Amino acid sequence: MEVLQALAGSVDVLTFDHEQVPNRLLETLQSSGANVAPPPAAKLLAQNKLHARKVLGDMGFPVPPFAVAETPADIERFASHVGMPLMAKAATGGYDGRGVWTVSNLDEAADALNEAGGQLLLEPKLALECELAVLVARTASGHTACYPPVETVQRDAMCREIIAPASASPALIAAAEQLAVDVADQIGATGILAVELFVVGGELKVNELALRPHNSGHYTIEGCTTSQFEQHLRAVLDLPLGSTALCAPHVVTVNVVGSGATTPLRDRLVAALAVHGAHIHLYRKDDRPGRKLGHVTVCGSQAADVRAAAQRAAALLEGAEL
Amino acid sequence: MEVLQALAGSVDVLTFDHEQVPNRLLETLQSSGANVAPPPAAKLLAQNKLHARKVLGDMGFPVPPFAVAETPADIERFASHVGMPLMAKAATGGYDGRGVWTVSNLDEAADALNEAGGQLLLEPKLALECELAVLVARTASGHTACYPPVETVQRDAMCREIIAPASASPALIAAAEQLAVDVADQIGATGILAVELFVVGGELKVNELALRPHNSGHYTIEGCTTSQFEQHLRAVLDLPLGSTALCAPHVVTVNVVGSGATTPLRDRLVAALAVHGAHIHLYRKDDRPGRKLGHVTVCGSQAADVRAAAQRAAALLEGAEL
Repeated sequence: MEVLQALAGSVDVLTFDHEQVPNRLLETLQSSGANVAPPPAAKLLAQNKLHARKVLGDMGFPVPPFAVAETPADIERFASHVGMPLMAKAATGGYDGRGVWTVSNLDEAADALNEAGGQLLLEPKLALECELAVLVARTASGHTACYPPVETVQRDAMCREIIAPASASPALIAAAEQLAVDVADQIGATGILAVELFVVGGELKVNELALRPHNSGHYTIEGCTTSQFEQHLRAVLDLPLGSTALCAPHVVTVNVVGSGATTPLRDRLVAALAVHGAHIHLYRKDDRPGRKLGHVTVCGSQAADVRAAAQRAAALLEGAEL
Repeated sequence: MEVLQALAGSVDVLTFDHEQVPNRLLETLQSSGANVAPPPAAKLLAQNKLHARKVLGDMGFPVPPFAVAETPADIERFASHVGMPLMAKAATGGYDGRGVWTVSNLDEAADALNEAGGQLLLEPKLALECELAVLVARTASGHTACYPPVETVQRDAMCREIIAPASASPALIAAAEQLAVDVADQIGATGILAVELFVVGGELKVNELALRPHNSGHYTIEGCTTSQFEQHLRAVLDLPLGSTALCAPHVVTVNVVGSGATTPLRDRLVAALAVHGAHIHLYRKDDRPGRKLGHVTVCGSQAADVRAAAQRAAALLEGAEL
C-alpha cells in the first residue's frame, strides 16, 4: 500500500488494464485523494457479473432474464420457469469461457455451483441472433466518444473474431451506440468502457461490461484513427478525445488461440507475415491450448477478403498446414 | 567492443537507427561473423555526402553537378564554372540545415570551408521544382518494397512537411520508384533506404541517402499498412516485407520545430489533441529553437483539409496563439 500511495502521489491519474486489481486498494487510494480512473465503484460492474446485472437492471437497462443461485433449490426454481439447458456463470473471475457452463440437468448445475464456490448467475440459453460490442470512451468531464459497434463471433464461449463495422441494421447500430453512451454516463465510467450486447429477437440486452481497453477493441489499433489505448489515456487524463472513425470500410480482427502446434513459432510467423495486409500481434505467452496468444487485424475495402485474410493469418499462426 | 561482441552473439541481426555509429565498430563486428544490416559499406553512403556523390555518380545514377573543395582555389574554380551563390556542404555530420551553407562570395565560402573542417562538397544553387523522397525496403535476399514517393517541403534547409503521395506526374513518380529500387539493389542496402531527390528541369537528381527509418517516412506509422519501423525489422530479419499501400488517399506529416515558446507544453498539447484526426508524436526533447521536437500526421480524403489540419496541430504544438 505504501508503494501504491507513493506512486499515486507522483502521477496525475491511476488507471489499470485489467479488472482483477483489488478494489479495496483502489478505494483506499481514492479516499486518500488519488485520482483513480475509472472509479472503483464503476469498475466493480466489470468485476462482478451478478452485481452488474442487478445494478444495470435497476437502472432500467435491458438485461437478459437472470437469477442468483446459492443452492440447488434456487437452480431448480429458475429452471422450472425457463427450462433447460441453462447458462450458469461464476459471478467473478471468469474469462474466455472459464467460469461459464451450459448445464442440461440439475446434477450438472450442482457441479457448476460447486465449482463456482457456491454462487451462480443463472440465465436461460438465449437464441442469440448475434453479439455486438460497443466501445465508448468517457472523460471525467463527461465527454464521450463512441466507436462503431462491432460484431463479435464466439466459439467455445471465447471471442474469436471481431468484425467492424457490425452489419446490423442502422436502427440497431444507433440503439447500440446510444445504449453504450447511456451506460457510460449512468455508471460514471471514465476511460474506455466496452459494452457487450446480445441481440435477441431484434432487441439489445446488456451481457457484460469491461472498464478498460478490451479484446473487442484491439481492431482500433490499426482500424481506427485513435486506438483504444491512446483513447483510454486521453479519457482518464481528461484530454480531448480522438476521432473514432474507421480507417477503412472493413476491419476484421481474429484472435490467435493456442492449439498445441509443434511447428516452430518462427516458421508460423514467417508464413503469416506473408499474408497481404495482416497486422500481427503476439503477446509472448506460452502456447497452451485454448489460450489467446495474439491477434491479427486486416483493413480493406472488401468485407469477405478482409475477413478471409485475417482468418488465414491467424490460422497460420495457430499452426495450420503451410 | 566486448559488449558489442557479446550483444552480436546473442541476436539474429544488428541494426541501428542513426548513421553516426562508428563504421570501424560495425566492420569489426561484421568481420567476426555478425550479421550487420545494413552493411557498413552501404551505410557509409549515408554518412558521407561526398563519398555518396562519387559512388552514385560512378554507378551512373543522376546526381547534381558537384565538386570537392579543400582550398579557396578549389572553390574559386567551381564558382567560375557555375557562378554564385553556391551550396556548400560539410561531407559528414550535417542535418536539419546544420553543415549546409549558401555562400554568395569567396569570403563566405572560405568561412564555410573553415567551419566544415577543411573539406566541402560544392553544388550550384539549383532551381528546384520540388523535392521528393522515396523509401524502399530491401531484404538480404534481395526482395524490395517501395513506398509511394512523397513530396518534402523544406524551410531553412530543414524538412518541415511530408506530403503523400507526391503530386508529380505518373511518369516522374514511376521513375523515382525505379531509381530508388535500383539504388537499393546497387549499393546492397538492407532495411529501409530513404532516397532524397531533387526535381530540376523535370529530371531527378539524387541528393542524399539515409539507410535507416527516416524522418520522411514517419508518415508511414499511421499512413501506410506497414510502418517504416516494422518494415525495417522485417527487412533486416529477411522476413516477408509488408504492404506499402497508403491507408488513405492523402497523408501529411508536419514536423514540430522548437520555437522557444513559453506556453506550457501541456496547454499546447491539449489544443493540438483537439484537432480532428491529428496523430501527435513528441520526442521528449528540450525545446530549442530550430530543433525537431516531434511531428503530426493526418490522414484523409481531401488533400487541402489534411494538410491544413496537420499544419494547425503542429503550429499549436509550436506555441501558436490558441
